Amino acid sequence: MHNFVFHNPTKILFGQGTIKTIGPETRAWGKRALLVYGRSSLKQSGLYEQILASLRTAGLEVAEHGDVRANPLVAHARQGIDTARTQHVEVIVAAGGGSVIDTAKAIAAGVPAEHDVWKFFTGKKSLKTVLPVTTVLTLAGSGSEMNSGMVLTNEATGEKFGFGHRLLHPKTSILDPQTTCTVPPDQTAFGAIDAISHLLEFYLTTADPDTSVQDRLMEGLIENSMAACDRCLQDPLDYHGRANLMWTACLALNGLTAAGLGRVGFPMHLIEHSLSALYDVPHGAGMAVILLGWLRAQQTALGKRIASLGRRLFALGEADPQLATEQTIARIADWLASVNAPLTLNDLGIPAADIPRIADNTRGLARVWRLADSTPERVAAILRHCLA
Amino acid sequence: MHNFVFHNPTKILFGQGTIKTIGPETRAWGKRALLVYGRSSLKQSGLYEQILASLRTAGLEVAEHGDVRANPLVAHARQGIDTARTQHVEVIVAAGGGSVIDTAKAIAAGVPAEHDVWKFFTGKKSLKTVLPVTTVLTLAGSGSEMNSGMVLTNEATGEKFGFGHRLLHPKTSILDPQTTCTVPPDQTAFGAIDAISHLLEFYLTTADPDTSVQDRLMEGLIENSMAACDRCLQDPLDYHGRANLMWTACLALNGLTAAGLGRVGFPMHLIEHSLSALYDVPHGAGMAVILLGWLRAQQTALGKRIASLGRRLFALGEADPQLATEQTIARIADWLASVNAPLTLNDLGIPAADIPRIADNTRGLARVWRLADSTPERVAAILRHCLA
Repeated sequence: MHNFVFHNPTKILFGQGTIKTIGPETRAWGKRALLVYGRSSLKQSGLYEQILASLRTAGLEVAEHGDVRANPLVAHARQGIDTARTQHVEVIVAAGGGSVIDTAKAIAAGVPAEHDVWKFFTGKKSLKTVLPVTTVLTLAGSGSEMNSGMVLTNEATGEKFGFGHRLLHPKTSILDPQTTCTVPPDQTAFGAIDAISHLLEFYLTTADPDTSVQDRLMEGLIENSMAACDRCLQDPLDYHGRANLMWTACLALNGLTAAGLGRVGFPMHLIEHSLSALYDVPHGAGMAVILLGWLRAQQTALGKRIASLGRRLFALGEADPQLATEQTIARIADWLASVNAPLTLNDLGIPAADIPRIADNTRGLARVWRLADSTPERVAAILRHCLA
Repeated sequence: MHNFVFHNPTKILFGQGTIKTIGPETRAWGKRALLVYGRSSLKQSGLYEQILASLRTAGLEVAEHGDVRANPLVAHARQGIDTARTQHVEVIVAAGGGSVIDTAKAIAAGVPAEHDVWKFFTGKKSLKTVLPVTTVLTLAGSGSEMNSGMVLTNEATGEKFGFGHRLLHPKTSILDPQTTCTVPPDQTAFGAIDAISHLLEFYLTTADPDTSVQDRLMEGLIENSMAACDRCLQDPLDYHGRANLMWTACLALNGLTAAGLGRVGFPMHLIEHSLSALYDVPHGAGMAVILLGWLRAQQTALGKRIASLGRRLFALGEADPQLATEQTIARIADWLASVNAPLTLNDLGIPAADIPRIADNTRGLARVWRLADSTPERVAAILRHCLA
């Protein structure tokens, strides 16, 4: 086990009826709030009114920054920064999924900065101070509600970059599984796949051979992601299925699973970010395709590890290592197919001829994330495994 | 899954070489520190000098409160409170295992209080404010380094009581597995058993039937407790075995495993506390005996749950439920025997004739902990299962 620091001060309020606490939880951090949200679901579900009422009852003045889209844009975050400055906002409230929370974090980081917020993402500036962020999560998957990361897309440069800093932990996050009961099947599955992809990145990229504590945690969370997703697709109103998926996705990327693994990379996310930047595919959909291709490409190099995972997840028994590896990948592909995820670039509407362009797009983030192994040539080779 | 609040702000610095950070981590909370430690091991190992040097280099004035014993006494904590007040101490530094950390927490709670510290334990006073606590952990097991609980013994009344409050989370805990390489085999095993007993209390006392996230976490941690303990007993200098045991025991009782389980009790700890209060047996030794008796006593009522655990832990296959339950208890007993833990009251030197006296001693804590089911009659029945 490698040395590590684990420090996650985010307060989680989990369960039915917790939405009404967003007012007092936010009021603890300031009097003037900016409410950040997405396009339509928050208002359709009635949550918008509930959240606003709670904030106002707690004595908060509320400015708004709506219309956050999936694969959120830095240009839109910049508008939020302007609004926050004009309104002298002291605290940012995110109500939505990962895109909304990441936009809120970018606003929280950008308001006190004397430079453009994108410079954090490109590594040109370091983060010194942020506004406090509270969140109401309405989509399980990203884990942003309890972690220190954010991902934005720069349309002008065609870059989708991620950035993390300990100051970006939300102060309080409210997780009411009930709010996710209206999430449609495809987005439910994409959220579960997102959680699984976080866990697989850690599980398969650690170079530490002695991580049984983390391995059991990750295996359990992958198993739960699949099982809970199945429950939610079978019965979208299954509260406990929604609860299991929501808490699993949160724990998958809150720092706990990676603590002690040493340096881990996000080589799969690297490639998916380019798919989202260039084609605006949903993140979870892109991850389904990339993780299958990546597993196939690493079948030999990581065979032992993939087989270990399969033996735990699918009780593969004492099959020989190569067979166990193949079976594990096949079982993951079967599960992805069963939740109607795309399995190939073709399923995403991306032609094979675009592979060089996608591979080239990964250069910038590979440099920022220091993924020296992810050369455009290797990325292209993995993408060719996404054609089958 | 039940509603829950999860908020654990303790900062963990884990790994070799982290001891030297105790100075700056403590200095962040004050200038005058009280260093709390045990009887001899800290000085024998050289850690005492290292910690003192780090504290002084960081500019701290250090008063001392040594000589904390296993099953620590409230009378001794009171002396620490007096010292802290006299020396105008601003921050408490614990260097040791659970007994030392719990004593430090009691001092931290007692210094600002205008009443005797024991009143927190008996539920007669509520906690309003505490001094900050930092810790250097030297024994894996209690989990006190990352939780909000403390347990002390009142010799005058023959009571061993536990108390928890969110203010009691240490600010920073330093976990260097290397410091535990000199822990003797019996104490190593007792620590692992302590961690397992925390997990089993949660696993077996939750009334929530839908907790697959927590179940996979707990099963993984129980498996790791056993496996890591085995490694440490085979080779006391196995750093990664020590690391796995240390991090596992910490995660077993840091709030994560119980979050979402609803109300869980500590009916096994209740009984063990009486053994420790009356006979001063090591906590882990007492827990080994009580958990076996408790499992046997609950064999019918909790059979399905015990069998589920066994299927996960020991790959028992598709045996019939009753057989799986018996096999699970037998496998746990075998493991306890393999690490030379006591298995019966007789092994602890406690005669069967004392059962009524022990059962009677549990009354007070059962009332404070609101364990209505743990009547002296039922406790006596469980204790009779500890004779075989």
